[in-house]
Amino acid sequence: MTASPGPISREERAARAKAAFDHLDTPQDALVLFDDQFIFYYSGFAFFPTERPVALIITRDGERILFVPRLEREHAQQMGEAERVADYPEFPGHRHPLLQLTDLLGELGLSPASIGVDHDGYPPVMGYDGPELSEALPGAKVRRVSRALDHQMALKSPTEVELIRESARWGAHAHQLLQDYTRVGENETEVEARATKEATAAMIAALGETYRGQNRWMSGAVALYRGQIGVHSALPHAMTTGATFQHGDTLVTGAGAAVWGYLSELERTMFLGEASGEQQRFFGHMLKLQDIAFEALGPGRTCAQVDEAVRAYYEREGLWDHWRHHVGHSLGQRIHESPFLDIGDSRPLEPGMVLSVEPGLYVPGLGGFRHSDTILITASGMELLTDYPRDLDSLTLPA
Amino acid sequence: MTASPGPISREERAARAKAAFDHLDTPQDALVLFDDQFIFYYSGFAFFPTERPVALIITRDGERILFVPRLEREHAQQMGEAERVADYPEFPGHRHPLLQLTDLLGELGLSPASIGVDHDGYPPVMGYDGPELSEALPGAKVRRVSRALDHQMALKSPTEVELIRESARWGAHAHQLLQDYTRVGENETEVEARATKEATAAMIAALGETYRGQNRWMSGAVALYRGQIGVHSALPHAMTTGATFQHGDTLVTGAGAAVWGYLSELERTMFLGEASGEQQRFFGHMLKLQDIAFEALGPGRTCAQVDEAVRAYYEREGLWDHWRHHVGHSLGQRIHESPFLDIGDSRPLEPGMVLSVEPGLYVPGLGGFRHSDTILITASGMELLTDYPRDLDSLTLPA
Repeated sequence: MTASPGPISREERAARAKAAFDHLDTPQDALVLFDDQFIFYYSGFAFFPTERPVALIITRDGERILFVPRLEREHAQQMGEAERVADYPEFPGHRHPLLQLTDLLGELGLSPASIGVDHDGYPPVMGYDGPELSEALPGAKVRRVSRALDHQMALKSPTEVELIRESARWGAHAHQLLQDYTRVGENETEVEARATKEATAAMIAALGETYRGQNRWMSGAVALYRGQIGVHSALPHAMTTGATFQHGDTLVTGAGAAVWGYLSELERTMFLGEASGEQQRFFGHMLKLQDIAFEALGPGRTCAQVDEAVRAYYEREGLWDHWRHHVGHSLGQRIHESPFLDIGDSRPLEPGMVLSVEPGLYVPGLGGFRHSDTILITASGMELLTDYPRDLDSLTLPA
Repeated sequence: MTASPGPISREERAARAKAAFDHLDTPQDALVLFDDQFIFYYSGFAFFPTERPVALIITRDGERILFVPRLEREHAQQMGEAERVADYPEFPGHRHPLLQLTDLLGELGLSPASIGVDHDGYPPVMGYDGPELSEALPGAKVRRVSRALDHQMALKSPTEVELIRESARWGAHAHQLLQDYTRVGENETEVEARATKEATAAMIAALGETYRGQNRWMSGAVALYRGQIGVHSALPHAMTTGATFQHGDTLVTGAGAAVWGYLSELERTMFLGEASGEQQRFFGHMLKLQDIAFEALGPGRTCAQVDEAVRAYYEREGLWDHWRHHVGHSLGQRIHESPFLDIGDSRPLEPGMVLSVEPGLYVPGLGGFRHSDTILITASGMELLTDYPRDLDSLTLPA
């Protein structure tokens, strides 16, 4: 086995901050970012957003200034990689943090300036309330550039792909345990907890003491049903119910792992006992839908073209009643990222993009049918980053 | 023991939707809300925000229309209490969901109208991108009213107070277990997991099969250290480290429980073995700070006055180096709500408000010192909703 991948290097994050400006449609003097995922991406500072605003300023020459509440100063200095950390006392405080941010921008010579933002001001979190940046800094031209930054984030580096691949390995391990422990009469919650705990322990043992998940959506290696059991699997986002597995259940899973900020997505449709004719029929359609998507994915195609190819099959086979969502989404740091494999997304697929491929069929009274795999767009087509059996035999559990 | 409290009734949520308009400074023809917490508060529909927009329209006469992606239609119909559920096929789709929302507002006669919003358009979540509502509906006057809705949410009904009280009971139970299991040589993560698991099981047994947490920040009954162990407790938001407890450690805890959408907050500073002179000195100051806050809390005072009273003690005792944050925040559905016990928050305290009271002292190299209690503003003063020993003896663990 090769050495386990480590965190994104300081050099890679610093280079991202410099390169961000190359992705913009219109030149900006600086970026001001409020989203925790952008801030982590460019500065390595991981935090949980609260009503106390946090911002990252990136100047044209790539200097990064983290703006945090006093409460987070040491944390930002220790965990972040910004060239400078500035702090304000508290929110709301005597002078609103957004106004203190404009003071700081003024010191940096960025009062009359073109500023690219992910959001015009700190977004609504918990009880936060405050002015837009454009209101607070009337001399500046404030322009939303998140779509351009999303594009940069969508193009994964070789290191990012390795981290997602490592995540996919441990997601598959957790999924195998979930599959092994799922038997008639067992309880959903207990099976999930056992698979997740054991897979996480195995991952930590393999990746070593220094391993960190650093992901907002996953921790450790997880495999879950999220209530998608039996007829409840017909709701794509079912509520967890702690169900007891029964003979004949259609099961829809979800698995992944957090590795240094990155995640992956693996989902499978399984059956407890031999699938009925109806279950087999929908399973077959679902496999076919995913095959069509795999076939359609490649550089130079647009996201929309993939969704259109898959939709043509729903149309041809009269499956519209069972359609609920588009083919997939990008992912990496975020559990969902843009672009989306959707008829409304005309962005082209490019090498380095990582996406989920998960067309589904939902049949009230019977169940849901969806596999999800994580794929990489390559120079010539696509490569599966998840590696787990897809066929009916492998996914039929003894009962 | 009295019967365990159930969910907020359909009548109470419907009445909230009607009453929302009474809280506004300026009359509005309708409200359009995008925040999941407001949507749950007014309609009972609990969901996890993704890039697929969800909105709740409330008309002047209190009619509630949930606007969801096709994917969530059945879920919204089953779990929500809106008078109507409208859906759009997918995001981004052929026609952007925000434009479809404006179509719906048009059908409702709300194109040229005054519309109160929590955010001007769907906020940035994952890879979402789209127009502001004011851009998409140029005939309407769109005005942010979240501060007014926050005020409504801050005034808890008797049922809400009962749910928070129930949460506080189970938070205290989890905390007691955490305290009992914490011994020199034990591991943080294991002690947290054991206390949390046992307290959750006890709570579910007591509240019955139908119990649901329905809270975004907590599930079950939890008690945690979150890495605030020994010198690491000096960082108010330390990263979890899985530390082993050692003789002499200063420990800062956190506990609560999710009960039908509501939570509470209980935190204690504890010592493993007899506290040193320095530990006792800071513990004493911290108790005094919290006493001053309790004393200052009551209807008719402002939030700022409470923070000012507490700050006067930091000033008098020369403790500014150890100050990191204001006295506390409102809570209930959200883990942090407004108003805040902060010098910059001039809002008056009113009966029915529920707040955390948690002034802290942070001493690098020694530890953090913070108790947090959840209190209710009453007609004559305040009442503690958390019930857990605060004194040094009770919080000194054998070692």
